[in-house]
Amino acid sequence: MKDDTTHLQNIHPADLADRLERLPSDAAREVLQQLPPAEGAVILAELHTDKAANLLEGFTGGQIVGWLRFLPPHMVADLLFALPVKRREEVLTALPPDQSAVVTALLRHLPDSAGGIMDNRFIAVRADKTVEECLADLRANPEQRTDDVLYIYVTDDAERLVGVVSLRDLVFAPAERRMSDIMNREVRVLHVTDDQEAIARQVHHYHFLGLPVVDERERLVGVVKIRDAIRVAQAEATEDMHLMVGLFGEERIWTPWRHSIAKRLPWLGVNLGTALGAATVVSFFEGTISRWTALVAFLPLICAVAGNAGNQALTVIIRSLALGEVAPGDALRALRKELFIGAGNGVVLALAIGLIAFGWKGSVLLGVVAGTAMLLNQILGALAGVAVPFGLKWCKVDPALASSIFVTALTDTMGFLVFLGLATVALRMFGM
Amino acid sequence: MKDDTTHLQNIHPADLADRLERLPSDAAREVLQQLPPAEGAVILAELHTDKAANLLEGFTGGQIVGWLRFLPPHMVADLLFALPVKRREEVLTALPPDQSAVVTALLRHLPDSAGGIMDNRFIAVRADKTVEECLADLRANPEQRTDDVLYIYVTDDAERLVGVVSLRDLVFAPAERRMSDIMNREVRVLHVTDDQEAIARQVHHYHFLGLPVVDERERLVGVVKIRDAIRVAQAEATEDMHLMVGLFGEERIWTPWRHSIAKRLPWLGVNLGTALGAATVVSFFEGTISRWTALVAFLPLICAVAGNAGNQALTVIIRSLALGEVAPGDALRALRKELFIGAGNGVVLALAIGLIAFGWKGSVLLGVVAGTAMLLNQILGALAGVAVPFGLKWCKVDPALASSIFVTALTDTMGFLVFLGLATVALRMFGM
Repeated sequence: MKDDTTHLQNIHPADLADRLERLPSDAAREVLQQLPPAEGAVILAELHTDKAANLLEGFTGGQIVGWLRFLPPHMVADLLFALPVKRREEVLTALPPDQSAVVTALLRHLPDSAGGIMDNRFIAVRADKTVEECLADLRANPEQRTDDVLYIYVTDDAERLVGVVSLRDLVFAPAERRMSDIMNREVRVLHVTDDQEAIARQVHHYHFLGLPVVDERERLVGVVKIRDAIRVAQAEATEDMHLMVGLFGEERIWTPWRHSIAKRLPWLGVNLGTALGAATVVSFFEGTISRWTALVAFLPLICAVAGNAGNQALTVIIRSLALGEVAPGDALRALRKELFIGAGNGVVLALAIGLIAFGWKGSVLLGVVAGTAMLLNQILGALAGVAVPFGLKWCKVDPALASSIFVTALTDTMGFLVFLGLATVALRMFGM
Repeated sequence: MKDDTTHLQNIHPADLADRLERLPSDAAREVLQQLPPAEGAVILAELHTDKAANLLEGFTGGQIVGWLRFLPPHMVADLLFALPVKRREEVLTALPPDQSAVVTALLRHLPDSAGGIMDNRFIAVRADKTVEECLADLRANPEQRTDDVLYIYVTDDAERLVGVVSLRDLVFAPAERRMSDIMNREVRVLHVTDDQEAIARQVHHYHFLGLPVVDERERLVGVVKIRDAIRVAQAEATEDMHLMVGLFGEERIWTPWRHSIAKRLPWLGVNLGTALGAATVVSFFEGTISRWTALVAFLPLICAVAGNAGNQALTVIIRSLALGEVAPGDALRALRKELFIGAGNGVVLALAIGLIAFGWKGSVLLGVVAGTAMLLNQILGALAGVAVPFGLKWCKVDPALASSIFVTALTDTMGFLVFLGLATVALRMFGM
C-alpha cells in the first residue's frame, strides 16, 4: 500500500478528490486514512461538502479533528455544518479551545449566507500607515500569507471598513505614500446575512476579486474570496437548472440513488397532480374524441411543441433573472416580447401542422382546427413561460422552483382545452 | 442634456451598461455619444458583445476608433469580431498602426478559444531577478499596472514559460530572494486553441486566478484572467440551459424578438418532427382507443411524468458533464444509477396512477395497465435521460444540444407505445 499512497501524492488534490467522489464510502475512507493528515485535510476541503461529511461520519470526533486542525476556520465550519449535530459537538469539544470558539462563531451564520461563505481571515491596516510600513508588516507576519490574499483592508479605530488597497496598488505605489492616499473609498460590501444569490449576481455584474463582509455594526468580519464566489455562482447555476425540472437541493451524478429518489419523487408526484388537470380536460372531451378519433394523434403534437416553446421562454427568463439582467418590474416588457415571439412562431408552426393534418388524415377541417390550436397554444406557451417565473418571484420563492413542471402543466391543460374545444365547435358547426 | 450626463457619470459602469441594454439602439447610441469617449469605451466593454456591436454598427470607422483607442487590444478584438467584416476593416485601418497589428494578431483566434479570450498584456521577468529588483521594476513601469495583475510570469530566453510567482508571494518574500527560488514551476497552461468549455471546467476544478496561454511553440502569449474566466463559466452555464430546450447561441432577455424567433423556431420545428413519432404511435392505436375511450385521459399523465423524470436525469448528467464531474466513460455507471431511480420512482408512481385510474374510471384493468405503463415509462425516462447526453457527446456534439427535446420525444413515443400496446393486449385478453 505504501506505493499506492506515494503515487497518490503526485496527483493534484482536486483530481484526487475527484477519484474519491467515485469510490464507495468505505474505500474512500481507507484512502483518506493512508494519506498524511495535512494532505487528507486538503482533499476533504476539495470534496463536495456533502461527500466530505458523509466520509467523516465514519470516523470518531478525535479522528476528525486530526484533519480539521489543518483547515482554516471557515472550511471547518462548512464541514461541521453538514455533520449531524451530535458529531458536530464532539468535534467542537475535541478542537483546541481558541479554534473551537472561532468556528462556533462562524457556525451561527447560514451556510448559504455571506457570513457562512466568507473567510474570516483578512489583512486589515490603519489608514495612516505608509506603503513601506505595510509591506514590512506583511513580511514580518508570514502567517497572514493565506491563500488568495488580493486586498488589504483599511479600518478605523472601531474596526469599521473605510477603504481597500489592492495588492497590485500596494506593489506599484511609491514606498512613502500612506494607505489613506492610495486606498479606494468606494467599497462595495456584503452584510453577513446576504444570500448566496446576491453574491452570484455581484460576481456576474461587477468584476471583483474579493468582497468584504460587515456585521450589523458595519465592522469588517470577513471576506468572500473569489474562489468561493465562483463556487457559489456555479452552484447557483446548477441549482436553477435542477429546480426547473424539480430536483431538490444539489444532486450530483454520484449522489447515491436512494437520496436521488428522495429528491426527485416529490416533484414527480406534483407533476402527476398537475397533469391530472390535462387528463380531466381530455376526459371531458371523450365524446368529441369518440366521434373524431383522428384528433387523438394530434394531442402529443400540441402538447410537445407548446410545452417546449413555454420552456424556451422560461429558460431565457430564469437565466436573466439569475444574472440580474432583468428585474421583477420588467415582467410586462418581457411578456410583450414573448407574445410577439409566440405569435410569430405560432403562425409558421400552425401552417406546418395544418399541412401535416391535411396530408396525413386528408381533412381540411382537422388542418384548420390543429393549426388554430397550434397558434393559440404558442401564445399560451409564451404567457406561461413569463407568468410562471415572475409569479414565483412575486410569491417570494425561487423563480426556478419546479417552473418547467408548472409551465408544461399550463400548456398541456390549456392546450388540450383549446384544441379539443375548437374541435367540438367544429363538429357542431359542420355536423360530422 | 448636460445635467443628464453628469448624472450618468456617478453610476457604476456596469449599472450604466445595464440601462443601455434596455434602451432602443438609437437612444443608447445617443447616450454613448454624450459621454466622454474614455467612459463610453468602458461602457462598451461592459455591454454584452452582441449589443455593443449592434450599437457600433451605427457609427463610422473613425467614430468607433474614438472609443476603441481607450480599450486594451483583447477587448478591441472581441468587439471587432462581432462587427461585419467591412466595418471591421475600416476600424483596423483607422487604428494607430501598432495597435492595429496587435489586434489583427488576436483576431486570428476564435472568440471562444483561449487565444480569443486571453488578455495579451502580462508581466514577464527572468528567473535570476531578485524580489527587490522585480518590485523596483514594477514601480518604474506603471504602465504595466493593468487590471487584475495577480501573477508575475517567469520566462526563459526563448520566451517560454518556466514558472509563476503570485503577487502575494512577491509581497511576502524576503527582498534578496531570486524569482527562481520563489516561483512555482508546476504551471498549468492553456493552449491558444483550447475551447472555452475547457476553461470553464478548469475554473471549477482547480482554483486559479489567471491561466497563462502558450502558443504552439510553448511561448507565453497571454493570460486568461479571472474576470474573463468567470464570464466564460457563466456563459457556458447559460448556453447549456439554452441548448437543452433548443435555443441557438446566447439569447438574452432583451434580444430583439425577431432574432429570438430565428433562434427558437428551428428547434420547435425539430420538435414538431420528433413529436410526429408519438403521434404516429397514437394513430396506430386508434382502434384500441375507440373501443376504450377512457385511455385517452391517461395519455397526458403518462407523457408528462415520464418526460419530467427523463429531464431530471438529463439535467443532472448535463451539469455534471459541464463541470467535469463525470467523463464519457462513466456512462454505464450513470445508467445503472438512473435505472435504480427510475424503478424506485416508478413503483410509487405506478401505485398512485393505478389508484387514480381505479378511483376515477372504476376499472381495475385500467389501473393495472396505467400502473404498469407508468413503471416501464419511468425506466424508459431514465434510459433516455442517460442515453441522449452521452449519445450526443459520443457524436462529438454538445451533450446539451436540444437534449430536452430528444428526451421528451423518446419518452412520449416509447411511453405511448408501451401504454397503448399494453391496453391492446389487455383488451384482447379480457375481450372488452
